Amino acid sequence: MIEYRNLRVALLGAGSVGAQVASLLLEHGPELANRAGAGLELVGIAVRDPEAQRTAELPAELFTTDAESLILGADIVIELMGGLEPARTLILQALNSGADVITGNKALLATHGPELFEAAEQVGAQLYYEAAVAGAIPIIRPLRDSLAGDRIKRILGIVNGTTNFILDRMDTVGESLEAALATATELGYAEKPDPSADTEGFDAAQKTAILASLAFHTTVPLDAVYREGITKVTLEEVEAAKKAGYVVKLLAICERLTDADGVEGVSARVYPALVPRDHPLAAVHGAKNAVFIEAEAAGDLMFYGAGAGGIETASAVLGDLVSAARRHVIGGPGVAESTHANLPILPITAVTTRYQITLSVVDAPGVLAEIATLFSEHGVSVEALTQSVQPQSVQPHAIQNSTTPTATLVIGTHEASEAALAATVEALEASDVVSTVTSVLRVEGL
Amino acid sequence: MIEYRNLRVALLGAGSVGAQVASLLLEHGPELANRAGAGLELVGIAVRDPEAQRTAELPAELFTTDAESLILGADIVIELMGGLEPARTLILQALNSGADVITGNKALLATHGPELFEAAEQVGAQLYYEAAVAGAIPIIRPLRDSLAGDRIKRILGIVNGTTNFILDRMDTVGESLEAALATATELGYAEKPDPSADTEGFDAAQKTAILASLAFHTTVPLDAVYREGITKVTLEEVEAAKKAGYVVKLLAICERLTDADGVEGVSARVYPALVPRDHPLAAVHGAKNAVFIEAEAAGDLMFYGAGAGGIETASAVLGDLVSAARRHVIGGPGVAESTHANLPILPITAVTTRYQITLSVVDAPGVLAEIATLFSEHGVSVEALTQSVQPQSVQPHAIQNSTTPTATLVIGTHEASEAALAATVEALEASDVVSTVTSVLRVEGL
Repeated sequence: MIEYRNLRVALLGAGSVGAQVASLLLEHGPELANRAGAGLELVGIAVRDPEAQRTAELPAELFTTDAESLILGADIVIELMGGLEPARTLILQALNSGADVITGNKALLATHGPELFEAAEQVGAQLYYEAAVAGAIPIIRPLRDSLAGDRIKRILGIVNGTTNFILDRMDTVGESLEAALATATELGYAEKPDPSADTEGFDAAQKTAILASLAFHTTVPLDAVYREGITKVTLEEVEAAKKAGYVVKLLAICERLTDADGVEGVSARVYPALVPRDHPLAAVHGAKNAVFIEAEAAGDLMFYGAGAGGIETASAVLGDLVSAARRHVIGGPGVAESTHANLPILPITAVTTRYQITLSVVDAPGVLAEIATLFSEHGVSVEALTQSVQPQSVQPHAIQNSTTPTATLVIGTHEASEAALAATVEALEASDVVSTVTSVLRVEGL
Repeated sequence: MIEYRNLRVALLGAGSVGAQVASLLLEHGPELANRAGAGLELVGIAVRDPEAQRTAELPAELFTTDAESLILGADIVIELMGGLEPARTLILQALNSGADVITGNKALLATHGPELFEAAEQVGAQLYYEAAVAGAIPIIRPLRDSLAGDRIKRILGIVNGTTNFILDRMDTVGESLEAALATATELGYAEKPDPSADTEGFDAAQKTAILASLAFHTTVPLDAVYREGITKVTLEEVEAAKKAGYVVKLLAICERLTDADGVEGVSARVYPALVPRDHPLAAVHGAKNAVFIEAEAAGDLMFYGAGAGGIETASAVLGDLVSAARRHVIGGPGVAESTHANLPILPITAVTTRYQITLSVVDAPGVLAEIATLFSEHGVSVEALTQSVQPQSVQPHAIQNSTTPTATLVIGTHEASEAALAATVEALEASDVVSTVTSVLRVEGL
């Protein structure tokens, strides 16, 4: 039996992830000690209410409401309470006292990351955050270390399980957005009563800011992430996408690109997009997450797994804990977060992508030519156009009463700028021959 | 402009990976220095023939034939020459002189890994080997660090691109094994003139030994890896698998299991197996690799990407280089390779899996009952049985001349031991009512 030096571990928060971390740490302590080269003693768990119901049975004597005292004297602090405060203040206290900190707090990192990383660097401590993005999937360490010798071109991530579950239900079962959201709520995937953190893309945007900062060695603030949620996605769009060989996914996109003025920078954005059915991301079903990385040398990589869940995310936290313990055994300062590239953050208007636009138009001679002209006038090049005459019975109500027959046009474009596309859509909406612009979706992953 | 301490990097070998490593290191030097916190100076490249043609243009003055002198005075040595000797001796020399070593040499690690890790630990150096398994895919670091707090249950890996390409051609294009191998050779995926390192599973077995050792903190010697190649896989088997909802993949399997006597240990094995079409591994096409990990806490994870290729694998080597440089900046000893679990290695006979068995049988009353009895007598439980009468025209030659009509039986079993299955197959072959045992394949990924 090897005798190890003991490291004192303080846990802040005992929610679904925290309770599992405590439980696994108590249960697998000796095994983890062997891997870490140091004993890992859980010295206490700071919570608001020690009497609250937990997802794991934990010794009552570990609980305390005094987080500040618990932090003092800890070698490693694990923050899993969530929210901005008091998490931020407690982490700063822990770092300033020389402790390494592990956190799964994506909101905090996306909002106050630079301040926390700076505090860690000042005292030579290290901030670990594998659990903050894509739950159990190892993605921070691969980006930070494994790909440290490469250049990332683009990341396409499915980083929100709730919205992927909803879009997948619409695609595979044919449920409406509302019905799929109800199913997600019932299964505990969506928050009650307000699911907007997921459905409006706020959660994904936080993770996008973290991934983009890491991938491009550049601080990407949360408010620089362009964001659209899934609440406007219709079942008709999902079904049309299916017919056209696509699937609709809410994507977190981090991209290094050069804008029209030749400025090289970083684009970080979240929106629902069409993904080709043969793309590896298309096979990510249910509440699973996946991060697809395009690197200059490595080529295409994908990391797939559970993006949430108490015990799943606890695995990522414990991996960080073993790393932190190994670092303590070796000694020396932590590795500072790298922001050396310091690239400009480009707005959504700098992005060029392909689009798929669905229109309801008057079915009359000359209409196609008029619409084609309208696209070309705005500098948007049409790649493919499919026209189908709508049977009277399924025509939108407003048009049923008119005597003019209508047709549905699906137009796929070549790469176009956001600005050119917006101007095109505006012109389409103003055009006499267009009844409705039914759908405008970006196409990614080509 | 920050002034960094310079680290001296020696490269051994300038084949397809080595040449790309040198080229990227020279081209991206300042960027890597920023990430590593240290300058990375390529001090020389040891090769057999400095005049040989390379896949990248490199300064002639870097080449030397004197590897031993080059190693002296290097902070970091990158070994990409391949083969057991002189690679082993040179790596030992480098480690003993205190240099960190990066290698992509799977044959060497699978054969002499423990000796090399021991040498590194003795002097506090570190041996990095991300490039040795699954090329560009970060898999070593996730297993070693990210999942260090978890318990791996099973790994199913597609770790040989050549055989995956061949099996994928058979499945998607309908080529015979021979034709698919010819295509693979033509495209440079298969070695000329002898492709057996790939097709007989030797390459996959080396990677399996490395993965199993890492995942289970136990030294798994190469000769303890059970191995079957793909050379006996027929197009008929691939097509029958397709109809039944499976795809045939050469799998590297590392599993923690308990044998019939209650001994808990590690099974490491390579064989072609049926994988359900809806399993994430089924979507791994062409020469791509993927490693599917089942962990106790994290659940299912998959890592996907390019398993070979000069520049792709160079990405993994450079990631290790940045890690090694960061370690030099921080100081202190490397993290020793963990073999604390030291589990017994179980033979293939300890494994239980499901099987799919295809038989050509006499089509007569009582035959089904006879075969069912034969399975149950050997303790193998039948899960599903499909019978189809063969049209005379496609009957095997030997049977065409007989007057007895024959039928094809496809039998799927519940989990059975290798021993019970082998005994069942032997009995089937001896049975009067069985013409031929056409195919016996294991089913994995359920």
